Amino acid sequence: MSIYENQARRGTIKKIKEQPIVSLLTDFGLTDPFVAEMKGVILSICPDAKIIDISHLVGKFDVRAGSFVLAAATPHFPPRTIHVAVVDPSVGSERRAIVIETNKYLFVGPDNGLMIPAATIDGILHVYHLTNRSLMCSEISFTFHGRDIFAPAAAHLACGTAPRECGVEIKDYVKLEFAQTTLIGRTLTCSVFHVDSFGNVITNLPKAELSKLNLKLGAEIRVTVGRRRISARLVQTYSDLKRGEIGILVGSHGFLELAYREESFVKRFHVRMGSDVQVYGE
Amino acid sequence: MSIYENQARRGTIKKIKEQPIVSLLTDFGLTDPFVAEMKGVILSICPDAKIIDISHLVGKFDVRAGSFVLAAATPHFPPRTIHVAVVDPSVGSERRAIVIETNKYLFVGPDNGLMIPAATIDGILHVYHLTNRSLMCSEISFTFHGRDIFAPAAAHLACGTAPRECGVEIKDYVKLEFAQTTLIGRTLTCSVFHVDSFGNVITNLPKAELSKLNLKLGAEIRVTVGRRRISARLVQTYSDLKRGEIGILVGSHGFLELAYREESFVKRFHVRMGSDVQVYGE
Amino acid sequence: MSIYENQARRGTIKKIKEQPIVSLLTDFGLTDPFVAEMKGVILSICPDAKIIDISHLVGKFDVRAGSFVLAAATPHFPPRTIHVAVVDPSVGSERRAIVIETNKYLFVGPDNGLMIPAATIDGILHVYHLTNRSLMCSEISFTFHGRDIFAPAAAHLACGTAPRECGVEIKDYVKLEFAQTTLIGRTLTCSVFHVDSFGNVITNLPKAELSKLNLKLGAEIRVTVGRRRISARLVQTYSDLKRGEIGILVGSHGFLELAYREESFVKRFHVRMGSDVQVYGE
Repeated sequence: MSIYENQARRGTIKKIKEQPIVSLLTDFGLTDPFVAEMKGVILSICPDAKIIDISHLVGKFDVRAGSFVLAAATPHFPPRTIHVAVVDPSVGSERRAIVIETNKYLFVGPDNGLMIPAATIDGILHVYHLTNRSLMCSEISFTFHGRDIFAPAAAHLACGTAPRECGVEIKDYVKLEFAQTTLIGRTLTCSVFHVDSFGNVITNLPKAELSKLNLKLGAEIRVTVGRRRISARLVQTYSDLKRGEIGILVGSHGFLELAYREESFVKRFHVRMGSDVQVYGE
Repeated sequence: MSIYENQARRGTIKKIKEQPIVSLLTDFGLTDPFVAEMKGVILSICPDAKIIDISHLVGKFDVRAGSFVLAAATPHFPPRTIHVAVVDPSVGSERRAIVIETNKYLFVGPDNGLMIPAATIDGILHVYHLTNRSLMCSEISFTFHGRDIFAPAAAHLACGTAPRECGVEIKDYVKLEFAQTTLIGRTLTCSVFHVDSFGNVITNLPKAELSKLNLKLGAEIRVTVGRRRISARLVQTYSDLKRGEIGILVGSHGFLELAYREESFVKRFHVRMGSDVQVYGE
Repeated sequence: MSIYENQARRGTIKKIKEQPIVSLLTDFGLTDPFVAEMKGVILSICPDAKIIDISHLVGKFDVRAGSFVLAAATPHFPPRTIHVAVVDPSVGSERRAIVIETNKYLFVGPDNGLMIPAATIDGILHVYHLTNRSLMCSEISFTFHGRDIFAPAAAHLACGTAPRECGVEIKDYVKLEFAQTTLIGRTLTCSVFHVDSFGNVITNLPKAELSKLNLKLGAEIRVTVGRRRISARLVQTYSDLKRGEIGILVGSHGFLELAYREESFVKRFHVRMGSDVQVYGE
């Protein structure tokens, strides 16, 4: 009998009380001390925090790209996770710091729209203007609010501070919406939303919209990407394609993706973020 | 009243007991939400899990490269670690999901050979075809089994589910062996196995094989890499070499390495993965 | 008597209560198994350890660059953190392994100056020559002391071993100082210290020195970087600059920075590490 069976039988691995989870998303990269400074601050205030990186390689200052990664990752986290997000070209200016309370999570970061798509998915309950000085570091730099404001506030929230203690509730926070998709006749128009590290192109077209065209699995579909017309086969997964074949599929986040089997679609077709994508129903 | 206020009032956040370790190796990169989604899923099922990244920068679809990194890293982990590995060009196809039970560890991932070298080092006891639907996410995408199958199964195993509950035991799992080395006369032939980020070339020649040549420490040894003949000094460590000097040594994983002091051997000699390396005993 | 001796005497670090924090800084990169091997070793000895990455992308063999990142990050960590730092071009040679005890922290790594700036900030109490074989792995490779010496020693320290058990105290450890700055007349001379991933140039000129020039916020200041003369506006934060405007400011680590709003200063002006920077008071 293996140690694993033993263990299951005796039930020796038990539930530990609970460690609050703090997730981090930034555009700080992995070469600088910035992310570690935030983690040091969080653990100094809330030693039990379990810190999970979402990504620190969001394109510099690219609020929209960061908002996509955040919205894709956060729904998979346990209730009560505190999500800290910092893509913050206006750090030190008048832009506000906010705390968003949603059904299951708290979000802490700049009031620039970055956290709105993710928060909207979970359902926004309250947005607070983070002004409570006692939740911040004793000295606040002008250039690094991630460390001096967002990290300590998140740590205090992780340790039990109530969101409403952060500051007054506000309604006029900065909104950010992913671009709309349209269906005219049998033509769906959407746009490029994200390019993953495999070179797959993720659009903002949700599965439900795509299904309005009643396309058949395996059919060749006409697609326009930017000005380029291509033919792509509708498949369920990348490996349904032959090497070098182009496909469209509903990806793991529920959006239409363009793929090029074991190659990079984005390199082959020079796609840009925001480019128009059209899918023709016949 | 929100769950956060509740929590603050009751002060339910307390200290811990034992934390199961889950390691992750993928080719997902660090820019996308993929890795964080897996971590969110794991923590949702097993909040006590301590998640350790092995690497997420394995070459895309490079099962062999991933298997080397996994085999190098896993033996250093504590008993009961659950190793999740996902380099999975055939995701969504008929390739099976498996759980491997070894003397000290569990491995969870695709049945494509990726985990075999690492599992073999520790001694394979059982291989299970992972089919138990209750150990997976409620919805399973076609393109992201890392999140929907491997991560949740690993989390359940980390929380005490017995490996045999995963599915039936199988014997016909996909094998993967590192290429053989040969000794003919006084000539050892091996091949390039891995190139580390310092540019050192790691071969598949184990220390025990090399010692058959009875080479003397400090001696100049003739070596062929691909078609290129070089002379390299046998040393114990990189710093035994002068700057710009070429050396061969037994590296920290117990295999023959080719090094170029404080420079990149691989850049200088344009070595490729799998290239032949010959070491001449005289 | 330091908090560490106190603690060892009273044996206050026990199973969990508190999770000891171990931070890691290396030049090992994120593609190889090296960092994971160190983490595996640490958790095998001290399962409660909470491991936090500072950075593994320090320039290869760049002790000075590593020392900057370490000195910037470590002061933000909680007391009793064990900081492990490995940028170690002389691994396997006669260079010593050391443990530095400061007011709040322990540092474990090579005796090559890497940890000195960080340790000095916190106040060096004792430096021990790490020779206690029982704190190391049973087999010690010649090329990977990070895994075989520093990681296990740090894990033992994290679990309560007293620093003085590591080896004899030494005074002749390798020093490393950041270059000096000078003020002659109204001209401050300093040098480039670090370039962050945003392309901002961080100098070694501390805020206190800069303030000797009594510069006015918002004023245009003459600056020389290498041989290049530029005019830069003194601001508080990046967003005080217009796009394409050049600025100087006191950054979040308290040093003078050169910035180019939402662009990379370093790319525009081809600045090198160690380049002279002059700031003119009129």
